[in-house]
Amino acid sequence: MILHGYWRSGTSYRTRIALNLKGLVYETAPVDLRAGVQKSAAYLALNPQGLVPALETDDGLVLSQSPAILEWLEETHPTPALLPSSAGDRAVVRAMAALVGCDIHPLNNLRVLKAVRELGADQTGVDAWAGRWILDGFAALEALVARHGEGWCFGGAPTLADCYLIPQIYSARRFNVDLAAFPRLLEIEMRAGLHPAFNAAHPDNQPDAD
Amino acid sequence: MILHGYWRSGTSYRTRIALNLKGLVYETAPVDLRAGVQKSAAYLALNPQGLVPALETDDGLVLSQSPAILEWLEETHPTPALLPSSAGDRAVVRAMAALVGCDIHPLNNLRVLKAVRELGADQTGVDAWAGRWILDGFAALEALVARHGEGWCFGGAPTLADCYLIPQIYSARRFNVDLAAFPRLLEIEMRAGLHPAFNAAHPDNQPDAD
Repeated sequence: MILHGYWRSGTSYRTRIALNLKGLVYETAPVDLRAGVQKSAAYLALNPQGLVPALETDDGLVLSQSPAILEWLEETHPTPALLPSSAGDRAVVRAMAALVGCDIHPLNNLRVLKAVRELGADQTGVDAWAGRWILDGFAALEALVARHGEGWCFGGAPTLADCYLIPQIYSARRFNVDLAAFPRLLEIEMRAGLHPAFNAAHPDNQPDAD
Repeated sequence: MILHGYWRSGTSYRTRIALNLKGLVYETAPVDLRAGVQKSAAYLALNPQGLVPALETDDGLVLSQSPAILEWLEETHPTPALLPSSAGDRAVVRAMAALVGCDIHPLNNLRVLKAVRELGADQTGVDAWAGRWILDGFAALEALVARHGEGWCFGGAPTLADCYLIPQIYSARRFNVDLAAFPRLLEIEMRAGLHPAFNAAHPDNQPDAD
């Protein structure tokens, strides 16, 4: 498989974590978002939306949109499972994932922050913009983890929810967000820092990191 | 089941469509977002994140986050299916859904538009903000539908992708977005307008519509 992504992109990062947790070997094809490579003819031929990540599978499919890629990974490579077995529990994990994937991350990715700057915000304003959605979302996630987590977001092993959380914490630190109010999330961050699958997925460990 | 939602909320609307397509009977419990009822103690006791929708199931579960609710519906009420059978096709439908659910809708919901106003944008600026994400996303979706659709987003029957698309078109019209460049999406809108499940879910047909 070939993962087209960008070292600092949260959606690429979450996809790398899931691939690593599944123990899958893949090639990395860097797409330099800052240089606009995602809008090049070559990349658009692969993924017409011009966003990362895109996953080329061994069957020649090109999958886009990380939530869809992660569900595909779970369906085609079910072991180890990244979703619990009961429908109700799966809904909890997916709600945690969507909380990050829909309510936080879309508001602090590169193209949106550029648009916020175009509305007149300076760096302090941009940090404040990103921070408010992160604080709102993490408060809700901290409460869910308090209820369902036993070392990870849900239960005692990593799930899709952790694949979403860890890149969002990385992003929060870039925006100087104070995370002291979220001890359970920080505990998961610490645990992920000791986990080979999460470590190998870290932006600093990608070939295109600068 | 009881669906806690708001007539004009896109995430409530998409959940209603899925419930109706599955032929499920549910009660509607309106949550007036403009009056701030989502932050009331009573609602927060139900859904601590203070967002709509929330679905109370017959088993007493309270599910939040529409992407998680829709997957739960598909798992617990598999007929009629709102996802295709092969993993690759499912990934395409989920990518279409995520394209709306992650790349468009989070940028034009009520709380985010309020924040855009706080950055100094007037109504024209707000419409332009909402419009740019809709135009970007719809251009990508139109291309995917051209490839995979046969009357609906994917194939010849409604899927999860249509549950996401139709509320986003409704929202686009509110922001005065010119949709002429998306004939395939408009054809789906027309078809949905003739479909009882989509009609019953329309904001204007909700008890809390004003």
